[in-house]
Amino acid sequence: MRCSNFFLPTMRQDPSDAEVPSHKLLLKAGYIRQLGSGIYCYLPLAHRSLQKICAIIREEHEKIGALEFHLAALHPAEVWTDSGRWDTMGDNMFRLKDRTGRDLCLGMTHEEIFTFIARRELNSYKDLPQIWYQIQTKFRDEPRPKNGLLRTREFTMKDSYSFDQDAEGLDAAYEKHRRAYENIFDRCGLKYSIVDASSGAMGGSVSAEFVVAAEAGEDEFVSCAGCGYSANTEVASSQPPAIDDPETENDQPAPVHTPDQKTINDVAEFLGVEPGRQIKSLLFVAENKPIMVLVRGDDQLNEAKLESALGTDIFRPARPAEIVEILGAEAGSLGPVGIKDVRIISDNALKGRRNMVCGANKDNYHLTGVTPGLHFQAEYIDLRTARAGEPCPSCSQPLAITNALELAHIFKLGTRYSKAMGATILNREGKEIPIVMGSYGIGVERVLVAAIELYHDDDGISMPPSIAPFQLIITPVKYDDDHQQEVADKLYSQCREMGIDVLLDDRKLSPGVKFKDADLIGIPVRITIGPRGLKQGNVEVVNRRTKEKIDCPIENAAEKTKQLLDNYK
Amino acid sequence: MRCSNFFLPTMRQDPSDAEVPSHKLLLKAGYIRQLGSGIYCYLPLAHRSLQKICAIIREEHEKIGALEFHLAALHPAEVWTDSGRWDTMGDNMFRLKDRTGRDLCLGMTHEEIFTFIARRELNSYKDLPQIWYQIQTKFRDEPRPKNGLLRTREFTMKDSYSFDQDAEGLDAAYEKHRRAYENIFDRCGLKYSIVDASSGAMGGSVSAEFVVAAEAGEDEFVSCAGCGYSANTEVASSQPPAIDDPETENDQPAPVHTPDQKTINDVAEFLGVEPGRQIKSLLFVAENKPIMVLVRGDDQLNEAKLESALGTDIFRPARPAEIVEILGAEAGSLGPVGIKDVRIISDNALKGRRNMVCGANKDNYHLTGVTPGLHFQAEYIDLRTARAGEPCPSCSQPLAITNALELAHIFKLGTRYSKAMGATILNREGKEIPIVMGSYGIGVERVLVAAIELYHDDDGISMPPSIAPFQLIITPVKYDDDHQQEVADKLYSQCREMGIDVLLDDRKLSPGVKFKDADLIGIPVRITIGPRGLKQGNVEVVNRRTKEKIDCPIENAAEKTKQLLDNYK
Repeated sequence: MRCSNFFLPTMRQDPSDAEVPSHKLLLKAGYIRQLGSGIYCYLPLAHRSLQKICAIIREEHEKIGALEFHLAALHPAEVWTDSGRWDTMGDNMFRLKDRTGRDLCLGMTHEEIFTFIARRELNSYKDLPQIWYQIQTKFRDEPRPKNGLLRTREFTMKDSYSFDQDAEGLDAAYEKHRRAYENIFDRCGLKYSIVDASSGAMGGSVSAEFVVAAEAGEDEFVSCAGCGYSANTEVASSQPPAIDDPETENDQPAPVHTPDQKTINDVAEFLGVEPGRQIKSLLFVAENKPIMVLVRGDDQLNEAKLESALGTDIFRPARPAEIVEILGAEAGSLGPVGIKDVRIISDNALKGRRNMVCGANKDNYHLTGVTPGLHFQAEYIDLRTARAGEPCPSCSQPLAITNALELAHIFKLGTRYSKAMGATILNREGKEIPIVMGSYGIGVERVLVAAIELYHDDDGISMPPSIAPFQLIITPVKYDDDHQQEVADKLYSQCREMGIDVLLDDRKLSPGVKFKDADLIGIPVRITIGPRGLKQGNVEVVNRRTKEKIDCPIENAAEKTKQLLDNYK
Repeated sequence: MRCSNFFLPTMRQDPSDAEVPSHKLLLKAGYIRQLGSGIYCYLPLAHRSLQKICAIIREEHEKIGALEFHLAALHPAEVWTDSGRWDTMGDNMFRLKDRTGRDLCLGMTHEEIFTFIARRELNSYKDLPQIWYQIQTKFRDEPRPKNGLLRTREFTMKDSYSFDQDAEGLDAAYEKHRRAYENIFDRCGLKYSIVDASSGAMGGSVSAEFVVAAEAGEDEFVSCAGCGYSANTEVASSQPPAIDDPETENDQPAPVHTPDQKTINDVAEFLGVEPGRQIKSLLFVAENKPIMVLVRGDDQLNEAKLESALGTDIFRPARPAEIVEILGAEAGSLGPVGIKDVRIISDNALKGRRNMVCGANKDNYHLTGVTPGLHFQAEYIDLRTARAGEPCPSCSQPLAITNALELAHIFKLGTRYSKAMGATILNREGKEIPIVMGSYGIGVERVLVAAIELYHDDDGISMPPSIAPFQLIITPVKYDDDHQQEVADKLYSQCREMGIDVLLDDRKLSPGVKFKDADLIGIPVRITIGPRGLKQGNVEVVNRRTKEKIDCPIENAAEKTKQLLDNYK
């Protein structure tokens, strides 16, 4: 491609409304333009990169025997009602009505639609296993679209679904995807981690995320340098620091007057009881029922863990009036002792503790001497948020917490969808059983974003060669010059023949502007052709990332470029 | 690909709800499944064909220097308000609100969005010409989705847009597209015609359609065997048969009582005045204003011509109550004589006529002796629908009318969008001028549908090799047989190495079932491997379309297949 035939709307100034590097650079380098909140148009540069990412995804999916489909983006409500998610997907789902008034939605994921196909077409264990995938546009009405392509309302996703007759089959399909994803992200030149993750509204049991450590990332993951444990903070465990409860004669709840002491810290100061010896009591409403959630006073509740525990994302903190109506006191004075008809879920860290402090369900009063198990009963699960520096649950080394950008998520769904939607097969014994499913997604734009977050500098983007819009840019200092033009054109043809994706900068601009553009766009290798080098029969081969420049005889330049690209660092 | 790793859900019975061949066969052969009204899922067979069609489209667009974008499908209302089409697109546009209540729509075409980009990024004549395209999902809330992929609510479109500084530039871009489209449809193996077409709601002046003659098609086009004239019936002209009007002494409108005579034929019989000597008077409401439309009594009004004349698609027949209120009579007794404040548009065929009959705007009365131009004034344009057998407007040979399936449509838009949206550039003289645009679309699924409508027989689909999901199927009669398996596997590898897209039918099914599936799916060439042939060292090479079978030495079979594919008929 020649620049004169291409569309390169680079900007000289930083865009004012962009904060994270990928957002700023995608705009500045002319990859994307914004159409509306969380809605972007991909210009040729972005499209070229995304197409290369998709090509790698397709090749690796072909290797694991996955078959490509293309399902609809517009879904009749009925198919989502079948799975029960029409009601539970909430405001994230774009909903609309057609001209006859029928309910439709825009696909935010395709478990339902693939299960719809499987229900009709897969009838016997002989039809299994199957891995079906598509690369398709998804729509999600994000509450806070932001950071360019990092959180948008319309994006491209590779989603695949596995169909097996049993858990072993699912395990195999899950492992295939795990390996395929490793190959994909390796080939895309990314540094990533695989972390335990929450299944959230997707249902199912086991899930893992592929994440890239990046300041701009909206997730966090904990990692242990000792044993390699890593997990999204949504599910990460750690050992909370131990706290000694004082022994007392009569461990009995006793009310104390705590006027205007509403927070854990207020009470700690007022009563001289450190936060870790208090019980933080929170009231939620899940599917119209009140639930009291308890964590240690110095811990934070992890809502993702609560979501998994409740098995629904339809829950919210109770409103002030509801709290008073249900418990008889305001939020600052709540506790689990003596309450009725309210399910109580407690974090594991409260198990075995004694003689603690909690609210008395009476305004301005707390209870001392409260012992979980003795003075109230609860279901115990892991609900607390792990913190940096806490001991690893496996090896007790201190955990680190890193900002992360989610690239992909793989789920063992099990029979969540096949049961709800009646997708069954006859097994070898002729018995009707639900299909065992997995679901696996890659955010295609996320790969591009992650590459930029990982590889950029003050001059712009430094794309990995496999997914760069072009691999090489040939920049004659002055294309008008006959000799430079001849060498440039010849090198251009030669590189094209070698399969190098090359851009020839034949624009009538100063060399400085051309170099700036090349660095901004992130083309991995540049060959500069200038009068001084040509006198020696040389051109200059430049590695965009390391800035290393090599004077290279013209006849070796293409080969040198190939070597650089093949071992790009 | 091996059948055992593929997904081939062919059906034994004809689907009950499908009428046209492509709909029936796409379902039966396992290419598609319906998700909702006008909404389909593409299974691997369809996806493979569509990807091949897209690859051809991309190659031919690259040749004309078009750059691929990918714009959003979700559009903020504002950008459509800018062009004025938010209001005029009517119910065909899927509209929705986001969680904050803001208006959005789903892209049914992308003139607005590409013009939005052009407005920001193209500033000077030096930035022109540009041809930008994308292959993208479009959404249209069709009033009557039907016939499988022929008329859907979600479909794939290649749409390109040209940006030039003047009419000559536009002419060149239009011609480039015309030639690119010819190459695309030639390479896809289609027989098609290029016909004059209506610009309809798209605006602009010149437009042409690429159509395939097919019973299933929802359009009609006229063609002249004499001079090659061809046009969509929406715009086609012809010479209406001449009619002699009788001379009378006093050509004055005279009311006659015509009790209960409401139709043209009623009146013809009652008064003895042939339909061609009557004036058919129709009342429409366009943008809230009444318009009377006149055609000869034996002609049909062409609403597409009326739409072009009115410059809007927002018009409708007046309701009975409106007719009475405006004209004082019911629909059977309307006429242009003596009416006030109503615009009158007449078909050309009424010009120069005299002494005709029309309604009297009084129930049960008509007027005789009515002479256009003398007794009423009207704007004269071409409004009638051409009929088969009428003389060609150019050479007077009789015209034929054929059902047609529209593949593609190219438009010279001019400055319709750039003016409305303020997309201007500075020309060579430094003057600000609106960009001159063209718009060019191919219905990607239409190519697949057209191929099936053109090439099918009682056994199923006969796909052109360039867009068939597989080009060759190797069918061992019994794959379990060691010798057959060895020959099949070897041929399979050999053909793959030659770049032939081959499917190996390794299923444990009877040869009859395997042959039926291959013919149904439409794979252009089949190599059958059976015990009798193998004894002579032969396999059977079968042309799906002609059913011609050739006994061929094993070692020549791949080459023979290649020859057949390269010259497929």
